[in-house]
Amino acid sequence: MSRPIIHTDILLKFIRTGARARAEKLLDRIHPADIATLLGKLRPAEARELIDLLFSSRQAGKTLSELPAEMIPSFLELLDDERLGQILGRIAPDDAILLLDSLDVTRQARVIPLIDPARRAELDRLLRYEAGTAGNVMTPRFLALERTATAQEAIDAIRTLGEQVEAVFYLYVVDRNGRLEGVVPIRRLVAAPPDRRLEAIMMPDPVSVPPEATQERVANVVARYNLLAVPVTDADGRLLGIITVDDVIDVIQEEATQDMYRLAGLDEEDRVFSPMATSVRKRIPWTAINLGTAFMSASVVGLFEGTIARNATLAVFMPVVAGLGGNVGSQTLTVITRGIALGEFEFERTFRVILKNMFIGMTLGAGVGVLAAGIAWLWKSDPAIGLVLFLAMVANMAMAGIVGASVPVVLKRLKKDPALGGSVLITALTDSFGFLCFLGLAHLILGLF
Amino acid sequence: MSRPIIHTDILLKFIRTGARARAEKLLDRIHPADIATLLGKLRPAEARELIDLLFSSRQAGKTLSELPAEMIPSFLELLDDERLGQILGRIAPDDAILLLDSLDVTRQARVIPLIDPARRAELDRLLRYEAGTAGNVMTPRFLALERTATAQEAIDAIRTLGEQVEAVFYLYVVDRNGRLEGVVPIRRLVAAPPDRRLEAIMMPDPVSVPPEATQERVANVVARYNLLAVPVTDADGRLLGIITVDDVIDVIQEEATQDMYRLAGLDEEDRVFSPMATSVRKRIPWTAINLGTAFMSASVVGLFEGTIARNATLAVFMPVVAGLGGNVGSQTLTVITRGIALGEFEFERTFRVILKNMFIGMTLGAGVGVLAAGIAWLWKSDPAIGLVLFLAMVANMAMAGIVGASVPVVLKRLKKDPALGGSVLITALTDSFGFLCFLGLAHLILGLF
Repeated sequence: MSRPIIHTDILLKFIRTGARARAEKLLDRIHPADIATLLGKLRPAEARELIDLLFSSRQAGKTLSELPAEMIPSFLELLDDERLGQILGRIAPDDAILLLDSLDVTRQARVIPLIDPARRAELDRLLRYEAGTAGNVMTPRFLALERTATAQEAIDAIRTLGEQVEAVFYLYVVDRNGRLEGVVPIRRLVAAPPDRRLEAIMMPDPVSVPPEATQERVANVVARYNLLAVPVTDADGRLLGIITVDDVIDVIQEEATQDMYRLAGLDEEDRVFSPMATSVRKRIPWTAINLGTAFMSASVVGLFEGTIARNATLAVFMPVVAGLGGNVGSQTLTVITRGIALGEFEFERTFRVILKNMFIGMTLGAGVGVLAAGIAWLWKSDPAIGLVLFLAMVANMAMAGIVGASVPVVLKRLKKDPALGGSVLITALTDSFGFLCFLGLAHLILGLF
Repeated sequence: MSRPIIHTDILLKFIRTGARARAEKLLDRIHPADIATLLGKLRPAEARELIDLLFSSRQAGKTLSELPAEMIPSFLELLDDERLGQILGRIAPDDAILLLDSLDVTRQARVIPLIDPARRAELDRLLRYEAGTAGNVMTPRFLALERTATAQEAIDAIRTLGEQVEAVFYLYVVDRNGRLEGVVPIRRLVAAPPDRRLEAIMMPDPVSVPPEATQERVANVVARYNLLAVPVTDADGRLLGIITVDDVIDVIQEEATQDMYRLAGLDEEDRVFSPMATSVRKRIPWTAINLGTAFMSASVVGLFEGTIARNATLAVFMPVVAGLGGNVGSQTLTVITRGIALGEFEFERTFRVILKNMFIGMTLGAGVGVLAAGIAWLWKSDPAIGLVLFLAMVANMAMAGIVGASVPVVLKRLKKDPALGGSVLITALTDSFGFLCFLGLAHLILGLF
C-alpha cells in the first residue's frame, strides 16, 4: 500500500515542474482513487492543470467519480460546460448522475444538452427520480434474461455484453414483461450444466427496493442481506436497474460522516485536510448560532442576577446542572439518530421511546442528583442548596431525554435529516432549562428558608 | 420489504404459544438477518427457546453470525459449550472467528477443544493473529490457481469447489510458492476462450493488505478501490486468505457507530431498542465521570466565589465562555476522529494540524469574542467585562482547538481508539479552562479598574 503514495508524489512533481508528457504517462499507472486524493490536496491552479491532463488521457471522468461527494462541486467549477458534457457522456450512468446531482439547476440545464444524445435519454430516465433515491442512483445497465434461457446462453450473453454492464456477478431472471423473478449468482451459472435452464438454478424472490427508496434504506438492505447488488423494481415488479455494493459503501461512509458532522454542527467540506480559511468560513454559521444560544442561556442567568448576588454559591453549581443535562441530551440524540440511520428505529414506537428516554434521564438524574446534593451540602454546609441542585438535575435530565429523543424523530417525520438539530441546539435547551430550574428553585426555596 | 416483518411476527406468536413444529417450519423461510433482529428483541426465556429451535433446524450458526457485534456476547451466554463447539465447527471460518473473539479467554479454552479437529486446525491459524486484524478476520477459503492454468481449468475448479469457497467472483492467480500474482474477475473468466491461460487475462499486481492490518484499514482499502474482496498476503507476498465486502460493510457500520458512541460517551449495547434498565446501567460509568468533571469545573468557579459575590454579572457570561469553547472542542474532535477513521489523516502532519486547529479556534474566538464583548458592554454598560469576556473566549477556543486535535492523535499513537476521550472530557477541559480564564482575568482586571 505504499506504492500509490510514491506514485502520486512523483506525479505532483511532474505537474509542478511542467513535465506534461511524463505526467501523462504516469497517470495510467495510478488508480483513479489515488488521483482523486491528490486532486483534493492541490491548489486550484495545479488542480486545473491535473484536470487538463486527466482530460487528455480520458481519465477525468473516472477520477471525478472517485472524488468524495463533498469535494465534487468545487472541481466541477474548474471544468467548462463543453468538457463536462463530454465526460458525462463517457462515464457510467450512475457516476454521471452523481456529478449531475451536484450541479445547480441552471448549470444542469446548460450541460445536459451537450451530452451525447443516446446517453442523454438514459440519463433523463434516471433524472426523473429525486436526487439520492434508488431510482436516481441506480445503473440501468444490468444483465437480465428470461427464465427459459439456458446457462450456456447466459454465458454467451456475458461474453457479448460483459464489458458494457456493471456488476456481472449476478444475472437477473425476468418474465416476458420484465418483471423480476429471480437471481443467479455467476458462480452457480459457471457450475451448472450448459443446457440447464435459469429457472432451475435461480434463487427465487430476490430482495429488491422501489425506486423511491432513499439511499440510506438501500444501504441498510444491502448491509443486512449481504448483497453485492440490489435490484430496483417498480410497483409492478419490473426490473429498472441495479445498485452495486461499491456505491453503497460510499453512501454508508458519507451518511455516517454526515450524521457525525451534523451532531457537532459542522459542514461536510470542513475536513482534516481542508485549508484553514475553508474551515473557518464553514464554521461561521453554526458558531454564530451557538453565540445566539449561549446568550439565550446567559439571559436566563441574567434574570436571577440578584439571586446570585445574594448567594454566589449558586454560580458554583451552575456548571453541574448544565453539564449533566447536556450530556444526557447529546447521548440521547446520538442513540436515536444512529438508530434511525441503521434502520433500527421503529416509528410506531416513538411515544414509548420518548418515554423511555425521559425515564432514563430521570433515573440517572436522581442518581447523580443525590450524589451532587450530598457533595454540595457537605461543601457548603447548606442542605437547601443540595435540595435545589437535586431537583434541578432530575428535571433537567428528564427534559434532556425527552428533547433528545423527540427532535430527531420530528425532523425525520418532516423528511429532514434527523441529526440536523445537532448537539448545539439540544445543549442550548438543556443549559437554559437547567439554569431556569436551578436558579428559579433557588430563588423560591432559598427565599423561604 | 414488508414480508420479513410479517414472517417474524408470526414466528414470535408461534414461539410464545409453544407451537414448536410450526415455528420450525417457518424458520426456513426467514432470512437469518431477520431472525437475528427478532432475537435482539426477545426476553431471555424466549430467546433461549428460539435458539433451541434454530439449533435443531441447524440455523443457529448462520443467525448468530448475522447478529450485530455488540449483541453477540449476551447470546453466546445462552448456549452451552457443547452446542457452541458444534456450531463453530459448522459455520464459515471467518464467522466462527467473530464468535470466538467475543468469548473471554477461559471460555475460549473450554470451547475450542470441542470443535471438530479438522476445522480446529484452520481456526488455530487465524487465532494466531490479534483479534480485529486482517489475518484474524479473513477467510482461508479462496480459489487460487497457478498462472499457467487455462480458463477452462479454472471453470472446472469452480464447478468442483464452488460451494466450499467464499467470494467466487474473483479467482486469484499465484506462483509456485503461493505468492499472489494477479486476480481474474469471474466475468473475464467466463468471457475468455476456454484454452486462454490465466496469466493472459489476469489483472496483475492486485491491491492486498498484510495480516497485521486493522479491520478499519482493510475497510478503507476496499472502499477506496471499490473491491468485492481484498487478498491478505504475508511479507513474502504469499496469499493467506481473503476478506469479502459483506464483512467490510459490517465493519464500516460498526466503526462509525463506535466512534459516534464514544464521542458521546455511550456504551455500544445502549441502543434504541434496548431495555431501559440496560441503558441506565450502561450509562452509569460515563455519567459518573461526567459528575466528576462537572465538579471539577464547579471547583474552578468555587475559587472565585468571592469575585462573583462582588460582581454577580460574571455568572451571567459564564455559559457563553463555556458553551463556545465546548463547541470548538467537540467540532475539532469530530473532524479529527472522522479523518483518522476514513484514513484521511496524515500523521506526519500532526503538528501542522494541531496548529491549524488552534488558529481556527483563535480566529473564531476573536470573531464571536468581539461580538460577545460588544453585547456585554451594551447590556451591562461595562467595557471592562466585555474585554475580559473577549480575552477569555479567544484563549479558551484556541485551547479547545489544540486539545480537540491532540487527544485523538495521541490516543491513536497509543493504539487506543481515537474517539475514546469523547466530548465529555474535552468539554470538561474547556469548561474548567474557560472559567479559569474568565473569572481569573475578571479578578485581575476588574480588581484594577
